[in-house]
Amino acid sequence: MSKPKSVEYSDASPAVQAVFDDIKTSRSVPDVNNFWKYLANDPKTLKRTWESLKEVMEPGALDPLVKEMIYLAVSVTNDCSYCIASHSTAAAKAGMTPEQFGELMAVVGMANETNRLVNGYRVPIDSAYEI
Amino acid sequence: MSKPKSVEYSDASPAVQAVFDDIKTSRSVPDVNNFWKYLANDPKTLKRTWESLKEVMEPGALDPLVKEMIYLAVSVTNDCSYCIASHSTAAAKAGMTPEQFGELMAVVGMANETNRLVNGYRVPIDSAYEI
Amino acid sequence: MSKPKSVEYSDASPAVQAVFDDIKTSRSVPDVNNFWKYLANDPKTLKRTWESLKEVMEPGALDPLVKEMIYLAVSVTNDCSYCIASHSTAAAKAGMTPEQFGELMAVVGMANETNRLVNGYRVPIDSAYEI
Amino acid sequence: MSKPKSVEYSDASPAVQAVFDDIKTSRSVPDVNNFWKYLANDPKTLKRTWESLKEVMEPGALDPLVKEMIYLAVSVTNDCSYCIASHSTAAAKAGMTPEQFGELMAVVGMANETNRLVNGYRVPIDSAYEI
Amino acid sequence: MSKPKSVEYSDASPAVQAVFDDIKTSRSVPDVNNFWKYLANDPKTLKRTWESLKEVMEPGALDPLVKEMIYLAVSVTNDCSYCIASHSTAAAKAGMTPEQFGELMAVVGMANETNRLVNGYRVPIDSAYEI
Amino acid sequence: MSKPKSVEYSDASPAVQAVFDDIKTSRSVPDVNNFWKYLANDPKTLKRTWESLKEVMEPGALDPLVKEMIYLAVSVTNDCSYCIASHSTAAAKAGMTPEQFGELMAVVGMANETNRLVNGYRVPIDSAYEI
Repeated sequence: MSKPKSVEYSDASPAVQAVFDDIKTSRSVPDVNNFWKYLANDPKTLKRTWESLKEVMEPGALDPLVKEMIYLAVSVTNDCSYCIASHSTAAAKAGMTPEQFGELMAVVGMANETNRLVNGYRVPIDSAYEI
Repeated sequence: MSKPKSVEYSDASPAVQAVFDDIKTSRSVPDVNNFWKYLANDPKTLKRTWESLKEVMEPGALDPLVKEMIYLAVSVTNDCSYCIASHSTAAAKAGMTPEQFGELMAVVGMANETNRLVNGYRVPIDSAYEI
Repeated sequence: MSKPKSVEYSDASPAVQAVFDDIKTSRSVPDVNNFWKYLANDPKTLKRTWESLKEVMEPGALDPLVKEMIYLAVSVTNDCSYCIASHSTAAAKAGMTPEQFGELMAVVGMANETNRLVNGYRVPIDSAYEI
Repeated sequence: MSKPKSVEYSDASPAVQAVFDDIKTSRSVPDVNNFWKYLANDPKTLKRTWESLKEVMEPGALDPLVKEMIYLAVSVTNDCSYCIASHSTAAAKAGMTPEQFGELMAVVGMANETNRLVNGYRVPIDSAYEI
Repeated sequence: MSKPKSVEYSDASPAVQAVFDDIKTSRSVPDVNNFWKYLANDPKTLKRTWESLKEVMEPGALDPLVKEMIYLAVSVTNDCSYCIASHSTAAAKAGMTPEQFGELMAVVGMANETNRLVNGYRVPIDSAYEI
Repeated sequence: MSKPKSVEYSDASPAVQAVFDDIKTSRSVPDVNNFWKYLANDPKTLKRTWESLKEVMEPGALDPLVKEMIYLAVSVTNDCSYCIASHSTAAAKAGMTPEQFGELMAVVGMANETNRLVNGYRVPIDSAYEI
């Protein structure tokens, strides 16, 4: 196995093309981004991941912008460069302003800080939180 | 140094009591939660953390519920039990419904999954995301 | 201290050369990879790490391919680019097929997702697992 | 929203009961474990997660024991107590011996160690790994 | 929102320039590094972060070199490339020798290894540590 | 395989007893702590880990207290409860004062915060750090 390579539409199987087509239609984009072209090496994972993502990210009790910001918060915490780049773009498309991005980063930073203060001080859970 | 212990109001220095008082007033709660009682072992960190948190979590470009959900998303990603318990409660107080919690978890789960798919497939960043 | 630099064989001390020689012989490779050339800045860590790795990765109750896939699973979870690249190559040399790589990534992705669902829902451990 | 609670079969909606029934049949167990009872608070996530997991964990290019060990490797790296407990049990059911568990842990430990040595020494990726 | 860009001194608001000036004076450097130039997109976070960092990193019960090495240990554990680069440089300026760096990495590596051995073996906390 | 259990001295093989004896002598303690009793399930890993730890933690370019604090910083970042408990105790034995612990936690917290600010703002490495 050499380094994973992207699968372009013209080289893809009909099953992969069908997923690519659905992504392009759902998102109104001329081409899918690299994430999907690489996942296409494993058509089963491509299909399952796209269907899961579509279901998870559709508008529901949370609006799409909030979902994108949560996605970005996780990606920043995990330091996933690609995910930070793609979900920053997606959040901006969903309406995130620079001010909202700034506050998002501030919250993510503070949460990562206080998570560790809690760990180090071995803070026991208040009984009020256990109900 | 033995295991960290909580500092109760009655045993606290005036500087610590002042921070506790400000927390109680700002949040309209009769007592501060364990996090602050443990941080009180280091009054400087207590004061700085409270002031930072107050500034970061105040309403701004993002509303308080969104901020609490982002805090929770990070805490779940980091598996900080105390933080998950306290920020679940805080998010619920800020209005998070069970349906919103369910969607929040679904997004956090998917983000952690796709972050790793990206890593493993070594997906290069699309040039469109670099502008 | 400037940025760490690689130590090439010709510039290495006899102690480092002895480790390099052992790596080259054990792996039947003409040169050691960058990991070892950088660790060579600290000959003690170089020697200990190589000896530990050799002991841990030798065939035993688990076959070498399984061990390489586990190594890769951890590296993907931690987002260590170098480790993902080197252990993908090592796993491929040990016989990993593209289909096996695809399934490996699928499991790693799902595990990272469900790990977070468990955290967020604060799922208590079933008593059956505690025996 | 109070602390998440488990949803028992008798209190579950028909949609949730259908997933529970499928889990019990697929795994030949008399009851589902806590993970599913908590996810049942969000029937959509319950269904999607179960279907994904069933697809990902079924025998394929990798045998079920290897998949369970990879799942455990990720859970140990992420320090997810529940996941470590449940997937240790699952791996044991799939045939993992104590010796295999010991080697698995040894690999997971070494991978987490060398991942950080790589980070700290800023080791550049060998060109041979980039093909 | 496009990709975050640095804010140079000449384009900065007086509030940002005041922070930049304080950084340059405190550190006796002709220009601030990229971290501050990017944070300057959110003047509130820039100011709060700089003031917190200055307070946390000033000499106290721990000397500056030890603090820088702890910062580096965390950054290596989190695999933050920028942070590893900047805090390696800062630690070197504070007097870290190559031998100290080597030992620091060895400790960080071992800690990450044994952290996972503890997780996998589900080691219960000795009662002596709970006092 | 049931849940891992501790191996007590009286039930241990001579090889395990030899490691236990060396730990007790080196540390002047009447009994080894739980970590070693659990690792004893895999005598090879027990021996290798103890020998590595002894080598890594011995006085060298860094003094033992600094090493223990670095160990604790990593354990707090990883949220390893056992490791936080045992290395807090070890650091205290090596002389860590409550004030030093407080500053250590403050640095660990800030590092985890700024690591994420760097990730989110995608800060490029200053050329000065690449030399």
